[in-house]
Amino acid sequence: MKHLIRTSDFTKEEILEIFDDAREFKNIKFSRILEGKIIVTLFFENSTRTRSSFEIAAKRLGAEVINLDVGTSSQKKGETMYDTVANINAMNPDAIIIRHSVHGLPESLIGYVSCPIINAGDGRHSHPTQALLDLFTITEYFDGDTEGKKIAIVGDVRNSRVAGSNRRLLPRFGIDVNLVAPDCFKYEGDEFKQFDSISEIVDDMDIVMSLRSQLERHNITYFESLQEYAKDFCITSELMERKEFLLLHPGPVNRNIDITDEVLKHPRCKVLEQVTNGVAIRAAILKKLILEDK
Amino acid sequence: MKHLIRTSDFTKEEILEIFDDAREFKNIKFSRILEGKIIVTLFFENSTRTRSSFEIAAKRLGAEVINLDVGTSSQKKGETMYDTVANINAMNPDAIIIRHSVHGLPESLIGYVSCPIINAGDGRHSHPTQALLDLFTITEYFDGDTEGKKIAIVGDVRNSRVAGSNRRLLPRFGIDVNLVAPDCFKYEGDEFKQFDSISEIVDDMDIVMSLRSQLERHNITYFESLQEYAKDFCITSELMERKEFLLLHPGPVNRNIDITDEVLKHPRCKVLEQVTNGVAIRAAILKKLILEDK
Amino acid sequence: MKHLIRTSDFTKEEILEIFDDAREFKNIKFSRILEGKIIVTLFFENSTRTRSSFEIAAKRLGAEVINLDVGTSSQKKGETMYDTVANINAMNPDAIIIRHSVHGLPESLIGYVSCPIINAGDGRHSHPTQALLDLFTITEYFDGDTEGKKIAIVGDVRNSRVAGSNRRLLPRFGIDVNLVAPDCFKYEGDEFKQFDSISEIVDDMDIVMSLRSQLERHNITYFESLQEYAKDFCITSELMERKEFLLLHPGPVNRNIDITDEVLKHPRCKVLEQVTNGVAIRAAILKKLILEDK
Repeated sequence: MKHLIRTSDFTKEEILEIFDDAREFKNIKFSRILEGKIIVTLFFENSTRTRSSFEIAAKRLGAEVINLDVGTSSQKKGETMYDTVANINAMNPDAIIIRHSVHGLPESLIGYVSCPIINAGDGRHSHPTQALLDLFTITEYFDGDTEGKKIAIVGDVRNSRVAGSNRRLLPRFGIDVNLVAPDCFKYEGDEFKQFDSISEIVDDMDIVMSLRSQLERHNITYFESLQEYAKDFCITSELMERKEFLLLHPGPVNRNIDITDEVLKHPRCKVLEQVTNGVAIRAAILKKLILEDK
Repeated sequence: MKHLIRTSDFTKEEILEIFDDAREFKNIKFSRILEGKIIVTLFFENSTRTRSSFEIAAKRLGAEVINLDVGTSSQKKGETMYDTVANINAMNPDAIIIRHSVHGLPESLIGYVSCPIINAGDGRHSHPTQALLDLFTITEYFDGDTEGKKIAIVGDVRNSRVAGSNRRLLPRFGIDVNLVAPDCFKYEGDEFKQFDSISEIVDDMDIVMSLRSQLERHNITYFESLQEYAKDFCITSELMERKEFLLLHPGPVNRNIDITDEVLKHPRCKVLEQVTNGVAIRAAILKKLILEDK
Repeated sequence: MKHLIRTSDFTKEEILEIFDDAREFKNIKFSRILEGKIIVTLFFENSTRTRSSFEIAAKRLGAEVINLDVGTSSQKKGETMYDTVANINAMNPDAIIIRHSVHGLPESLIGYVSCPIINAGDGRHSHPTQALLDLFTITEYFDGDTEGKKIAIVGDVRNSRVAGSNRRLLPRFGIDVNLVAPDCFKYEGDEFKQFDSISEIVDDMDIVMSLRSQLERHNITYFESLQEYAKDFCITSELMERKEFLLLHPGPVNRNIDITDEVLKHPRCKVLEQVTNGVAIRAAILKKLILEDK
């Protein structure tokens, strides 16, 4: 049995198989390959977007989904997370999807379950299904030819788990990762080239991945205003015209801070295509973990 | 593709077809005609009643329902309603059911989706599925012969979206609409006769539709008490005996203010039959919008 | 039509039939015997554990489940419980599962519905599906031979509805019930022998059922600390070694107060097996009430 905690849990070959399935699932609105399977979602951080993407993915394959409302759970009665998960596991679900604000928490639950755990985001660490759908969207755009492509990941690359997962995944597929962030959000390692504004390197990029500016969370005092931040990091029409790059964003977009209104309508901005691909990728991952890796 | 924003989105013929299907669905507990379809509910106002009616209707036809918990949604992260809906739409649902406190909001979302939108109530404007189930209940009661029937709509006819939708729908089926309300709740147009108490016109009515007295919302200071309001607008046994009319109410009933305890048990009070019909009508509407109007 | 309010609603023969079905359902992950059935859960007290057990049980048999979010219900609009339930009933569900903090409330709703009501716990009164899964776990452990077995129910036997249901159910299957509690939690009747510490009688017991110490709810001032309570009532390794008894607990366990960490891993501690059995028993009960007792 296999879990999905980080993208390195899958080999390159497995990822390409997942992409083959995802391509097929994009054209199928309903199948029954997961009929009778029970999938539990356990979200300790709010996320309508990711949770409903998983729920729709599961239901398109005929599975049943139980959304555990953590707010009303036994945790309020002082139960530990481990006991909660051991109890859910005793009801024999076929997969448990977990989001939690603590780095490493989904992984720490592996010893308590007998079904696959899927990490739907843990703290600042990892968001593997997002990185896989990002790579899938890139692969579709470049017809599978990702080797040597250059990406700029723009924004809070230090704290973003989306950036974290992509930083580790994309180089495996030959993509050259560049990070663009203000000093307060710069990545702490030195494996990647880092820049101070998107303008500096845009001419060289094939892909730009804008991150959600969560200034409300971190260090907002670094900037006088969101507009001050936007000057160096917002994706504008002028940038779109300078270089023909693919534009991605994990959503929700902070309009006119991350990406301008105008650019959001641009044909090379694939933000909504990422959402569509998210359902297909998650369906393919559920199929793989539940049916193939016994 | 068609949306249901107001009852005039359907022709008379289409409404009669929906009624034919609803009659059939009342006798069928389960079919698979919507199997594999995904229906999203997006309620920005609380409504266990309407939401579960839609959910049961959808499930009786084999569809899957995703209830988006708006309280925990991306809206909290500052996302606009339009981006939220565009994102949901990118997951390719087959219909989106929306309730919102703002008049016109469901209609304003049409440009952002590629599936039918169903208005489950918007502000003081419209509640089309309620009016259709009301008309269906009237049609059943009079064996289809609605021409020339007289209805009194009683209560807050100014602010009620149920009254609004019925005011526009019932005359298309030959029903003569009369409004009964205190001055503070009188309708602002002059297309209908208006009265100050139900007692004045009950002898002439074939149907009485009592509305929920939402005195807590509006102008309660107009009355010294709810009992003061009830004197002129509550449906009592005495009224039921004076004239043999059909009694409707959209629920939840404010007992002994809108309708007395005794009258709620009267065979001509069809409040619970309306609830039963609501499921059948909503099933028929889902079938029509999802399967027929491509 | 039959309801399940308390375990005495079933004859011994019916209970044994339910156990036969439960044994079968433990080995089946999916069937369609309840396809097209709609089951409504209405929980006025939080319980992720019991609610999801029912939900998984229903879905494993192919039924659809509607979880009514009572927090957002019409009750907020001042509707009585009876009207809420009459309205749900008018949508023709196949069963309604209710948990409420008031003793007797689920039973009081019977007159308002035309489908089975299942009591998922009412106040300090009854929790019949829990007692049935407890008895089922005992039956499995002793290969059906329950006659003459001795059980100690330990903890808040006065306020616990789990204790209440078991106290009434187990003697019907020949099990001798003994109660162990501090004075503040002693049972008020005199049909059972009562003891002051588990140590006093453990050597004589075949089964020990530890209850959740809800000291936060009741009379916590009776003890200086939870540890003070634990001295006489916590199940320890020393007790497990003194006598070869089966250990049960309805969960969630208050670790090291109800049962020690070590004992929770002991092969004779069947807490998680009870959770697994809970799904099977609830599935068998749903089958019986919905399909058999028309």
